[in-house]
Amino acid sequence: MMPSKTTQTPGRRRGIFITLEGIEGSGKTTQLARLSKFLREEGYRVVETREPGGTPLAERIRGVMLNIPPATPSEHLIRHPAEPITSECEAALVFAARAQHVTHVIQPALQDGAIVLCDRFFDSTLAYQGYARGVNLRTLSILNRFATRGVTPHLTLLFDLPVERGLARRRRHDAEQNRLDRETRQFHTRVRKGFLALAAKEPRRLKVIDAKPDPDRIAADVMAVVNTFLRKARTS
Amino acid sequence: MMPSKTTQTPGRRRGIFITLEGIEGSGKTTQLARLSKFLREEGYRVVETREPGGTPLAERIRGVMLNIPPATPSEHLIRHPAEPITSECEAALVFAARAQHVTHVIQPALQDGAIVLCDRFFDSTLAYQGYARGVNLRTLSILNRFATRGVTPHLTLLFDLPVERGLARRRRHDAEQNRLDRETRQFHTRVRKGFLALAAKEPRRLKVIDAKPDPDRIAADVMAVVNTFLRKARTS
Repeated sequence: MMPSKTTQTPGRRRGIFITLEGIEGSGKTTQLARLSKFLREEGYRVVETREPGGTPLAERIRGVMLNIPPATPSEHLIRHPAEPITSECEAALVFAARAQHVTHVIQPALQDGAIVLCDRFFDSTLAYQGYARGVNLRTLSILNRFATRGVTPHLTLLFDLPVERGLARRRRHDAEQNRLDRETRQFHTRVRKGFLALAAKEPRRLKVIDAKPDPDRIAADVMAVVNTFLRKARTS
Repeated sequence: MMPSKTTQTPGRRRGIFITLEGIEGSGKTTQLARLSKFLREEGYRVVETREPGGTPLAERIRGVMLNIPPATPSEHLIRHPAEPITSECEAALVFAARAQHVTHVIQPALQDGAIVLCDRFFDSTLAYQGYARGVNLRTLSILNRFATRGVTPHLTLLFDLPVERGLARRRRHDAEQNRLDRETRQFHTRVRKGFLALAAKEPRRLKVIDAKPDPDRIAADVMAVVNTFLRKARTS
């Protein structure tokens, strides 16, 4: 496994897939931008992307999922006083978007030798839909294999911090407040515990980053973990 | 199993779920309206619905699936010259919409003792995504159980006719021409064969209706099949 540096010989090109995970307000989006800049300066080709979304169709599905109102009402409406989204619908939308994202963005970039940095991926599905909403973890894994055709992150950075700190940080920013932001604190606590359970299950892939310190310190920790990973990838 | 007639005693209320299936232009939508009218005149409470769709959110998902352009472009677009929808994405969208439809329309109506008439359901998924596009039939069944929580039609009417006749009928009508209408004739032939294979596998549930004759004749055949079914349901 070898990311594309400019010095690299053709035919050995195979990218590296790194995902960034964590609860709302864990700072992963900021750290993704910093990691991207760092890797580019090191000479790597980097593709930045996010889930749910990452392609025009997948972003449209994201809009449906996060309940961003459509600009025009649909024609054939059976009126229903309130239509809460079911866990099953939410999960299926995530996988629908992921199928497009993997096929049209992630896989081509990896085949082209890039480092793909993705803000959220399958671990978020397990944490949110599985651990927090109670959808069966095995069913989610079957659905995920179906949607991704087996594409899996090589390295996952889990930004961990207490839920209160994350939610406070999220409120301070002028971020788009979506349906997930309005979930209860208990919900976000289940998400955090889910992430930590996943890290305990797969310690080689999932590296926990302490997201409490200031951004510079977190960035230094991220670079250290990624450098170690890239050194190993280069010699393996 | 007993549909709600006005004379019915409370506590015995349990609805009947009838789906109408067939290739494009098979006339099932017209026949659904006629069957609904007939059943209402017989004193049944009828809920008419369709897939993909049937709730505001599910109809929004339908719009995404059939590539009806959104009114406003999404914000975070990674531009991609062309983004064909993958079979996996299409299937996942169908199941996302179905989860909402079953939870918020079909299940409440059945619990309320109605006869639910649904234009397309899981057999369409097997015929289109499975037989025609090659998605694994077993995977589709797992996904379907997940989305529907086990809600299955009691009776399915399969309107069968040659593909050429169906497509010609579809073109004559001022129907919304969507992405599926633009598929090749071979594609629609695989769909038809898929439906017939399903009918051969489950002859008790799936009844094939010859959709070549004039609408009055087809309607008479439909009433006969449904009456036989209701008589059996009443005595069982």
